[in-house]
Amino acid sequence: MIRIGIIGAGYWGPNLIRNFSLLDNVRVVALADLREERLKLMSRLYPGLKLVTGNSDEILHSRDIDAVVIATPVSSHFPLGMEALSHGKHLLMEKPMTATTEQAEVLIETAQRNGLILMVDHTFVYTGAVTKIKEIITSGELGEIYYFDSVRVNLGLFQHDINVIWDLAPHDVSIMDYLIDRPVKTVSATGMAHFDNQIENIAYISVGFDANLLGHIHVNWLAPVKVRKTLICGSRKMIVYDDVEPSEKVKIYNKGIDYIRNREEVYNILVQYRTGDMMAPRIELTEALSLVAKEFVDAIREQRKPLTDGQAGLRVVKVLEGANLSLRSGGKVVKV
Amino acid sequence: MIRIGIIGAGYWGPNLIRNFSLLDNVRVVALADLREERLKLMSRLYPGLKLVTGNSDEILHSRDIDAVVIATPVSSHFPLGMEALSHGKHLLMEKPMTATTEQAEVLIETAQRNGLILMVDHTFVYTGAVTKIKEIITSGELGEIYYFDSVRVNLGLFQHDINVIWDLAPHDVSIMDYLIDRPVKTVSATGMAHFDNQIENIAYISVGFDANLLGHIHVNWLAPVKVRKTLICGSRKMIVYDDVEPSEKVKIYNKGIDYIRNREEVYNILVQYRTGDMMAPRIELTEALSLVAKEFVDAIREQRKPLTDGQAGLRVVKVLEGANLSLRSGGKVVKV
Amino acid sequence: MIRIGIIGAGYWGPNLIRNFSLLDNVRVVALADLREERLKLMSRLYPGLKLVTGNSDEILHSRDIDAVVIATPVSSHFPLGMEALSHGKHLLMEKPMTATTEQAEVLIETAQRNGLILMVDHTFVYTGAVTKIKEIITSGELGEIYYFDSVRVNLGLFQHDINVIWDLAPHDVSIMDYLIDRPVKTVSATGMAHFDNQIENIAYISVGFDANLLGHIHVNWLAPVKVRKTLICGSRKMIVYDDVEPSEKVKIYNKGIDYIRNREEVYNILVQYRTGDMMAPRIELTEALSLVAKEFVDAIREQRKPLTDGQAGLRVVKVLEGANLSLRSGGKVVKV
Amino acid sequence: MIRIGIIGAGYWGPNLIRNFSLLDNVRVVALADLREERLKLMSRLYPGLKLVTGNSDEILHSRDIDAVVIATPVSSHFPLGMEALSHGKHLLMEKPMTATTEQAEVLIETAQRNGLILMVDHTFVYTGAVTKIKEIITSGELGEIYYFDSVRVNLGLFQHDINVIWDLAPHDVSIMDYLIDRPVKTVSATGMAHFDNQIENIAYISVGFDANLLGHIHVNWLAPVKVRKTLICGSRKMIVYDDVEPSEKVKIYNKGIDYIRNREEVYNILVQYRTGDMMAPRIELTEALSLVAKEFVDAIREQRKPLTDGQAGLRVVKVLEGANLSLRSGGKVVKV
Repeated sequence: MIRIGIIGAGYWGPNLIRNFSLLDNVRVVALADLREERLKLMSRLYPGLKLVTGNSDEILHSRDIDAVVIATPVSSHFPLGMEALSHGKHLLMEKPMTATTEQAEVLIETAQRNGLILMVDHTFVYTGAVTKIKEIITSGELGEIYYFDSVRVNLGLFQHDINVIWDLAPHDVSIMDYLIDRPVKTVSATGMAHFDNQIENIAYISVGFDANLLGHIHVNWLAPVKVRKTLICGSRKMIVYDDVEPSEKVKIYNKGIDYIRNREEVYNILVQYRTGDMMAPRIELTEALSLVAKEFVDAIREQRKPLTDGQAGLRVVKVLEGANLSLRSGGKVVKV
Repeated sequence: MIRIGIIGAGYWGPNLIRNFSLLDNVRVVALADLREERLKLMSRLYPGLKLVTGNSDEILHSRDIDAVVIATPVSSHFPLGMEALSHGKHLLMEKPMTATTEQAEVLIETAQRNGLILMVDHTFVYTGAVTKIKEIITSGELGEIYYFDSVRVNLGLFQHDINVIWDLAPHDVSIMDYLIDRPVKTVSATGMAHFDNQIENIAYISVGFDANLLGHIHVNWLAPVKVRKTLICGSRKMIVYDDVEPSEKVKIYNKGIDYIRNREEVYNILVQYRTGDMMAPRIELTEALSLVAKEFVDAIREQRKPLTDGQAGLRVVKVLEGANLSLRSGGKVVKV
Repeated sequence: MIRIGIIGAGYWGPNLIRNFSLLDNVRVVALADLREERLKLMSRLYPGLKLVTGNSDEILHSRDIDAVVIATPVSSHFPLGMEALSHGKHLLMEKPMTATTEQAEVLIETAQRNGLILMVDHTFVYTGAVTKIKEIITSGELGEIYYFDSVRVNLGLFQHDINVIWDLAPHDVSIMDYLIDRPVKTVSATGMAHFDNQIENIAYISVGFDANLLGHIHVNWLAPVKVRKTLICGSRKMIVYDDVEPSEKVKIYNKGIDYIRNREEVYNILVQYRTGDMMAPRIELTEALSLVAKEFVDAIREQRKPLTDGQAGLRVVKVLEGANLSLRSGGKVVKV
Repeated sequence: MIRIGIIGAGYWGPNLIRNFSLLDNVRVVALADLREERLKLMSRLYPGLKLVTGNSDEILHSRDIDAVVIATPVSSHFPLGMEALSHGKHLLMEKPMTATTEQAEVLIETAQRNGLILMVDHTFVYTGAVTKIKEIITSGELGEIYYFDSVRVNLGLFQHDINVIWDLAPHDVSIMDYLIDRPVKTVSATGMAHFDNQIENIAYISVGFDANLLGHIHVNWLAPVKVRKTLICGSRKMIVYDDVEPSEKVKIYNKGIDYIRNREEVYNILVQYRTGDMMAPRIELTEALSLVAKEFVDAIREQRKPLTDGQAGLRVVKVLEGANLSLRSGGKVVKV
């Protein structure tokens, strides 16, 4: 039996409880949050919780808890994580893993020293859509990859502690890290804080790799509609991943570049929307978080690295840190 | 009767002939192109053409022609335009107006000296959609404008003389110039040439204004689907302009920023796609090019500046030139 | 404190438990189902349940239960409902209320005699979309209503006890009953059972009213994509309600019939997708079932008729019964 | 050289002229219409026309014309067609071929006797989308066909001479006739005339075949948006043909019926939008009317039956006639 304590009962909290509760020989036994009313609600919804507390230490120090999930604002990830690891708890952290590269490195080192599992909840990596795209890329079907372009915008919640890069980009960067699987060399970013709070609400991030490959991410809190669209272009095929699409999240287009170098096709192309067949594979709809929970629990039991381990978390934080540095320095190119 | 000669019988040529032919007291009398087979086809389709020639000088020097339309590759715009103006012809130029700022300035100065009309065919400025958006912005309905974000991508024709910025961005820059109507201060761009030809096929352009306002344009020849999407965000309302949409090209969203600063709405926002009513105004479907032709002819008759005059063409060329300079210098910010 | 027992732990069961659990002074205390494995799963997910049983009588006869929800196959609705009412339980029934008009009438009569609340879960009536459409129709904005056309198709579960009319049409008929709010006079239906089981998997239902108004419903288990689309056409405005649309479920088009009687507009119309502005109002996203639960509980406390009472359930069953009769008699028109 | 005369210069006229003009050794020499202003406009746009007249006999009786295209209101199709055939002209008729079955039969018989080509312009049969679907069906990929469901609605022009069945349904019936390629046995229809003119503006048509196959067509002049959607369901695969879609008109879904008979999949299906891969083949965008023109001219030269000959026109008229008869008799089933 693995006994789990969750710190942070916000938007994500109930989903964590529900998904861990569905696993065999796993029990969510404790929940901590600073907000009294959230605790009340959770107690009613989940009468199975043994401990519901305003003091996270009761969980972090408890002998009856094997693993901790940290779902709090990023600024508290490091201290809470260190406390958990130093008390022998396996650790699942919400993204972004930490506020700095250094913090991430210390957590990785500590987990390793104490022989504990350290995992980061890069949820999108576990979605049916991203899993399917990974399959396709791994198969070589796309050919050489030319660019990764991701747009994640909506009329969002203005965070008061972090800007739009730290709030939204972790999704795109973790997806890119998983799918492209190449070291990032440089990052540059432009953006703007439209309000007095000096917190950027829009940003454009360019990512350079050790290859003939371009990455670009547009994150934005000020868009009237939700857009979650990623283009992945290869020399042979191209993928459009639209996460807002209910039934056709992933589309694979099978006429590529060679095609359009053919002069005869020029007029044809000018009047057409696309130039080849399109295939939209069936996507598994299993809730990603249930796979996150399973991966964490399996990694604990098998004493192995989880798919999205501390190193993955660190790589993502590095890109976010670089993007912010560039943003603050007027867009100059930053080495990662 | 205004007699018009057209130089260049490519993709755009037939549309020019058709639209000018529909105007009262206007006749398209001559057409020039270097490609024999294009001339043959045009002669059959338009038996009304008096002169169909491989030698553009026959048009540029003719006494029986009042105005010339130049629809050739951009590299030839300047010499052909100068020849037309120096022979007393009014001049309509396809976009981009010229290959350099200097060329544009010389044309403007020459037209002025000779008392001739100089107009640039920024077609999109004459579409029902852009006209409607201009109306809305002018009315103040949007409030203060925060950003202009435009994406124009498709599996396009690889130009062998110009890169994707010169090929596609003139549309977005001319739309932005018309709608935002503020001086551009800086431009920076990143991009990549994925093929040996050293011609960039993808580019991201950031535009700085003399205001708390951000511009961004993504142009791309390597996308599997045609995207023509522009977001214009104001403090009160936001506009999505999707030119690929058949029936709802312009959508106006009427809940803005003040709204999402309200903490109580936070959870609400997190689960919603949007936060207010949306209105999609009826868009006039009159063919834009027919209005371009009419504006050119009216400007000639009324001896007045056309809506998209040489100055507009120049402003667009300045931004394109700056973007290319930045692109070649690794993305450094360029003053315009 | 209202103590609720639920009979039937299928697809809908967990949603019922969750939504009733969120109400103040309401507790879901018991759950019955014939399937052992479903009971196991429910016990784990909802440790708060006092009684989990394979014998529904333990709930229907219990003194510690005030109200019962019946979420079983339709064939058992009547006997279970009668048992509940005769033991003094308030009753919420899943749709369709019963398998015959007569059964519905007996239940209504029994509930009335025993002074108990009888409600039918016409869930869609409680959605933000339908509520908004009702508002619009009530306001008179649409003018005189000309037709109600609804399509509900998908690659569905083949029921082995009921055909597609009894499975899917209750949604459309209950929405139509609520929105149109006029007596149905006639029903006719065509359809087909493509498999040996003699259970129709596709049906087209025409509904006649006591007015210049036409109703039509297409239900289908054999469609590759989910379609949930309703057109409601009035003399002044028209509504498209697309339940699959994530963000624009309801669209109101404000140019109507008078418009298209104008001959001058003819050519215009021929080339246009629509002829007026469109407005997509913000839709409340509150889960409909939570409002169903609240309505049931409020009706019990206030001892009043619920919005979707037995009579509403009866009206829906009448139309379904008529449609089936017509279907079996080769499509002849049936009086309701 | 084939010399063509066109009777009727309405909406379709210019398209006919343009497309025939593009064929080798074909010339559109004459155009007739009763409306003075239409003739004026056409003369200006097509200076190549030798004869532009208000008197169709000048074309029908001319010795210098080989073939005639009739693009007038359906009521005049028969007399004009007979006049053309009796003067030795090959004949292309706009759809619907005639107002009655008898008229169609007489025209077929007359053309045959005089050894003349008789073709009906069922334009949709020549579109890239329908051609592709025909390919797929012929290949057997779909398996046994279960139903053909077509919806063609928009805020249309109110014809003053014919109802919505004669105006819109010819498209769907001709597509169905070509794709399904089985004899129609019965037709029934319901509909309504919402205005004093007694001309039905909405109709639902059910079509019975000599097989376990159902046809249904919904035509409607009173819809706020243009819908042109056809579902073709087979035992192995299903097709969605959405003619309004710019880039994905045809979608093939490859999980069929056998699949959903599997009980285990039930819950899966309930939460999914679809159950298999989808493929959207590239569609040729060649203008259908250019292929119609080519087919007509080729049939004349090769003295062979055209793809959509008089018999095809007759089959379509039979279904339309039956649908109208049923409509007027309150929806009773009519034998075709």
